[in-house]
Amino acid sequence: MEYEELREIQDRTRQLLDEKNFREIKRLINELQPQDGALLLDEMNEKDILPIFRLLSKENAAETFVEMSSDGQELLLNSFTDAELKAVLDEMFLDDTVDIIEEMPANVVKRIIKQSDAETRKQINEILKYPKDSAGTIMTVEYVSLREHWTVKDCFDRIRKIALDKETIYNCYVTDDKRKLIGTVTVKDLLLHDYDTAISQFMVKEVISAEATDDKENIAQLISKYDLSALPIVDSENRMVGIVTVDDVLDVMEQEATEDISKMAAVTPSTDTYMEQSVWQIWKNRIPWLLILMISATFTGLIINTFEGKLNALSPLLFACIPMLMDTGGNAGSQASVTVIRGLALDEIHPRDALKVLWKELRVSILLATCLSAVCFGKLYLLDGLAFGYPYTWYICLAVSMSLFATVVIAKIVGCMMPIFAKVCRLDPAVVASPFITTIVDALSLIIFCLISMAILPALA
Amino acid sequence: MEYEELREIQDRTRQLLDEKNFREIKRLINELQPQDGALLLDEMNEKDILPIFRLLSKENAAETFVEMSSDGQELLLNSFTDAELKAVLDEMFLDDTVDIIEEMPANVVKRIIKQSDAETRKQINEILKYPKDSAGTIMTVEYVSLREHWTVKDCFDRIRKIALDKETIYNCYVTDDKRKLIGTVTVKDLLLHDYDTAISQFMVKEVISAEATDDKENIAQLISKYDLSALPIVDSENRMVGIVTVDDVLDVMEQEATEDISKMAAVTPSTDTYMEQSVWQIWKNRIPWLLILMISATFTGLIINTFEGKLNALSPLLFACIPMLMDTGGNAGSQASVTVIRGLALDEIHPRDALKVLWKELRVSILLATCLSAVCFGKLYLLDGLAFGYPYTWYICLAVSMSLFATVVIAKIVGCMMPIFAKVCRLDPAVVASPFITTIVDALSLIIFCLISMAILPALA
Repeated sequence: MEYEELREIQDRTRQLLDEKNFREIKRLINELQPQDGALLLDEMNEKDILPIFRLLSKENAAETFVEMSSDGQELLLNSFTDAELKAVLDEMFLDDTVDIIEEMPANVVKRIIKQSDAETRKQINEILKYPKDSAGTIMTVEYVSLREHWTVKDCFDRIRKIALDKETIYNCYVTDDKRKLIGTVTVKDLLLHDYDTAISQFMVKEVISAEATDDKENIAQLISKYDLSALPIVDSENRMVGIVTVDDVLDVMEQEATEDISKMAAVTPSTDTYMEQSVWQIWKNRIPWLLILMISATFTGLIINTFEGKLNALSPLLFACIPMLMDTGGNAGSQASVTVIRGLALDEIHPRDALKVLWKELRVSILLATCLSAVCFGKLYLLDGLAFGYPYTWYICLAVSMSLFATVVIAKIVGCMMPIFAKVCRLDPAVVASPFITTIVDALSLIIFCLISMAILPALA
Repeated sequence: MEYEELREIQDRTRQLLDEKNFREIKRLINELQPQDGALLLDEMNEKDILPIFRLLSKENAAETFVEMSSDGQELLLNSFTDAELKAVLDEMFLDDTVDIIEEMPANVVKRIIKQSDAETRKQINEILKYPKDSAGTIMTVEYVSLREHWTVKDCFDRIRKIALDKETIYNCYVTDDKRKLIGTVTVKDLLLHDYDTAISQFMVKEVISAEATDDKENIAQLISKYDLSALPIVDSENRMVGIVTVDDVLDVMEQEATEDISKMAAVTPSTDTYMEQSVWQIWKNRIPWLLILMISATFTGLIINTFEGKLNALSPLLFACIPMLMDTGGNAGSQASVTVIRGLALDEIHPRDALKVLWKELRVSILLATCLSAVCFGKLYLLDGLAFGYPYTWYICLAVSMSLFATVVIAKIVGCMMPIFAKVCRLDPAVVASPFITTIVDALSLIIFCLISMAILPALA
């Protein structure tokens, strides 16, 4: 549904609320997809949200609730009666319940745990024990397990009986007496074989699986690389504990990309959307980086202080070229660093390739630097010098262009090597993206510029 | 499989090749997942690639071929006999064939088309007609279609008959005489109903679908938002033409994120990985942006030229603060722009929210600017002034801090508004990310700095 359409429905709902036409609201909201219903409810104010939620049919209620923002969920959880809370919880899949619990304050969590049955409570506690960002926190424990000696008919009987409660039934897992994973069978395989065939005859024994403590980013990469629709998750003794499905991975991939992009722009990543974050949260995610980078940048100022008198004696025009040198160095460096960071994240570049990357960037940077310094020379000498009348001599232009050349080459090399170096040190490569590289390259390019100017100008002029 | 493990297998294969132990290579390569086999073949040299490929079993050959890099595929396509080419093509799904055709030079495409049967050739031509980046180019035309009056048993009979040739059988599409899409049924629904129930009784009639000409990015968002495992694609008259499955969308999402990240770092996006791109390609993707940005940055130099004499008369120390001001402005601006660009890409921020975003950034920026200018004042006055002995007076520190305050606020506002403005103008917001904003903010911050210094220092000092 388009954003505009949804806004119309929101306006219509508010109007119906004023008219107290609840029958029409009920019709309207139950026709929406749960995701759109959730967006509608999220926009409602505190007073209206529960009355409207109560108009949802039983099936729609839980699905819509799961899709709401955590602020909206908290509002509802605080206003639900115990019976209402239990009704919603009973309809929810366990992985969704855990997701919600992780976002809620302690008193709300207590109420949720209290209203869950003993078995669910035990499972919730198991999942909550897994480390942050591990496979265990995104997996679902509701999967179909089959036994090796069953026939196709046995399997179908089993699936028919439990299908309603399982998120995914198309990938089934064959386990032994000790719950150890010994094979997989898809419903497609089952459909392609006769009813009385034992599944041991066609089950796939080489199963791609992951451990519950593995990082969820690795899980996403496994599923994406091998085009899996679900990945079985096992404990350290190869006992099945759950599955991660491809739609969970879509969210993980979106989150990981957002995290990397945030870090590259020197912002601490947040799981809330921009609109959900308060001004203070946004401030908190940005200030440390700005402070660190600002302090680092003041050291560049010290370089200027050191060389200022000498540069000024050579030509006051030299100062005017500093922003261009700094910006071009920064841009050249961030092109290289961001490309390498993304390559590392997608597993296309490995630390072992460091020399190959360096050799490639060296050649690219020489090509780029040649172009840029030629254009820079021409622009300064012909446009600023001859056309605009600034006293740019042949020697000044040469000093600036040579500095630009060196800056671009150094920026590219620093830019491509820093992320690989970070990876080797087990740091997140995304953190050493453009802002940090810019700060380093700024200082280096200024030193180069001052040294080249001081060497060339007195000698030639 | 881990990267290191794969390297070992590569080394082992090379060794076996030297020993001409083809039997062992055959065993080794047929045990690999097709994705890993493809990585292995991609690393082989021109001479060895075909002999090794021929060792793959018939089922593995096509799957492995599909996963290879386009360079590797081209090498093989040029060396295949006609019979080999036909064997591989017959085993491939149509959407994979089309993907390969789009990457190959004309003479290879001709050979592929020639070896395809008439029906496939017709379908390939249909798909190639869809606009670039549209749903039509990523969809598969192999789906299960059912008829409304069929019973569950009829459906299972149909599915059993055709399952082997279809990528996805779990989502089935109910069409009428004119191929119009009238409902969907999942295999799960079929399993949950009795054999003699007509599917018209339980098929879902409100189907989320998309048109073949829709942008693939929108398809990815639909599938991700509604947690679909497949999305039916129709023509302008609601006739079924294909489906897009969730694993196709994983690739689209990864590509879109990479594209946005590249644009944000002022690099023209490429569909090839970094390692696949030649030095010239990389150069071509980077040089235009660096040139544009370099030329723009030289205008900042003109501002310095204009004010230089006056600033120098006030205090030569002022120059030393320019890099810090420019860098902090650039960083503050790119934090805001990158956050807003990502929000727009994920459909979390809409151009209608422009005022809300502006109000939020204004408050955040005032908080940030207050902190930063306080620290900057302290650092200059206490550390550089009192401790290091540079003659930073109270007035100089005040002028610099006030300029910093104004720079941060302006940078945030330019940073958050430019991407929204780009979106309204139907440009890609990612293109106006950090490098462009830095260039604009640099010029603005320099003007502010010069004006504030010239206003404050003579009056107070």
